[in-house]
Amino acid sequence: MALSARNQLPGVVETIKLGDVMAHVVVRVGEHVVESVITRTSAEELDLKPGDSVRVVVKSTEVMIQK
Amino acid sequence: MALSARNQLPGVVETIKLGDVMAHVVVRVGEHVVESVITRTSAEELDLKPGDSVRVVVKSTEVMIQK
Amino acid sequence: MALSARNQLPGVVETIKLGDVMAHVVVRVGEHVVESVITRTSAEELDLKPGDSVRVVVKSTEVMIQK
Amino acid sequence: MALSARNQLPGVVETIKLGDVMAHVVVRVGEHVVESVITRTSAEELDLKPGDSVRVVVKSTEVMIQK
Amino acid sequence: MALSARNQLPGVVETIKLGDVMAHVVVRVGEHVVESVITRTSAEELDLKPGDSVRVVVKSTEVMIQK
Amino acid sequence: MALSARNQLPGVVETIKLGDVMAHVVVRVGEHVVESVITRTSAEELDLKPGDSVRVVVKSTEVMIQK
Repeated sequence: MALSARNQLPGVVETIKLGDVMAHVVVRVGEHVVESVITRTSAEELDLKPGDSVRVVVKSTEVMIQK
Repeated sequence: MALSARNQLPGVVETIKLGDVMAHVVVRVGEHVVESVITRTSAEELDLKPGDSVRVVVKSTEVMIQK
Repeated sequence: MALSARNQLPGVVETIKLGDVMAHVVVRVGEHVVESVITRTSAEELDLKPGDSVRVVVKSTEVMIQK
Repeated sequence: MALSARNQLPGVVETIKLGDVMAHVVVRVGEHVVESVITRTSAEELDLKPGDSVRVVVKSTEVMIQK
Repeated sequence: MALSARNQLPGVVETIKLGDVMAHVVVRVGEHVVESVITRTSAEELDLKPGDSVRVVVKSTEVMIQK
Repeated sequence: MALSARNQLPGVVETIKLGDVMAHVVVRVGEHVVESVITRTSAEELDLKPGDSVRVVVKSTEVMIQK
């Protein structure tokens, strides 16, 4: 199935910090780093670990431009 | 001033489509493309044009992970 | 691949209104209706049509509670 | 007062997990489950408890479509 | 009913621009102006007009800090 | 650099609650209070303290209207 979110970039998980409710995930995407906050439950269900190949996904309405 | 948003990636505007209220902006970020929807007013006030050096900015709570 | 977004509900597209930049999509989900605004580009690339079986996807940080 | 958010679905709270800053709330909506992350402060001020009748509220710009 | 969104500020509508799918609403809130983009359908159903007393509502996870 | 986010209101930090992953920040903006949830990492990197002059920043697509 395809998702309407226009930003789906491949990367590799660098670090995961599990909190009580949320988790902070850092993903290397090419020469950049992208940071994500998801639920701890999702991090556990996806079994996220450093080194995992993932995609970071962002809806285009959430992206701002700075110039 | 520094912004709390953890994702601020440098890129170059490729295309801009101005709608009546919103604008769709496509930005090349390294080897990837990032798409953004902002207000037409902001696109005009920033005077966004193809070739502009910009940053795409995303709050980490808006980033999902796919594995 | 699995997505971290915790809300992924099956439904059927009822109507699509294409604007210049955005598209308004109405999806029947069980006894309820869920409305979505995505880019026109995504609506076209997904070739969304009334009657399509889809999933509506929402990150849990975007869900409020009213009591 | 009426809210512009187009998605306001009735449900019943199933579980609440209070974290230090955030709270994870699971709500049964018809035959589906919807998950929400709100501040712990809001969860406490609303006095959310399993069995509470609530509405889950989502702005349509936050809803993606998967097909 | 009370909504979990922690930011609910009273204001007065200054201008509304209706697009094909979205609407851009400018609201005076005290000495500041707050801008909102909602669906055209919501703007019409709320019958928004300049001079209307409204509240602008923002989930706290959507608020960034610049310092 | 200018940011496309249309809402950038000046205020003063009142309180900060650091959680394990997230931080809850309360900012006085004129006669109102605006609450924000950002990552703990951002709160620490910005060295947010009560009394700091800051701006609260919100993308217009995240603002709802209640009437």
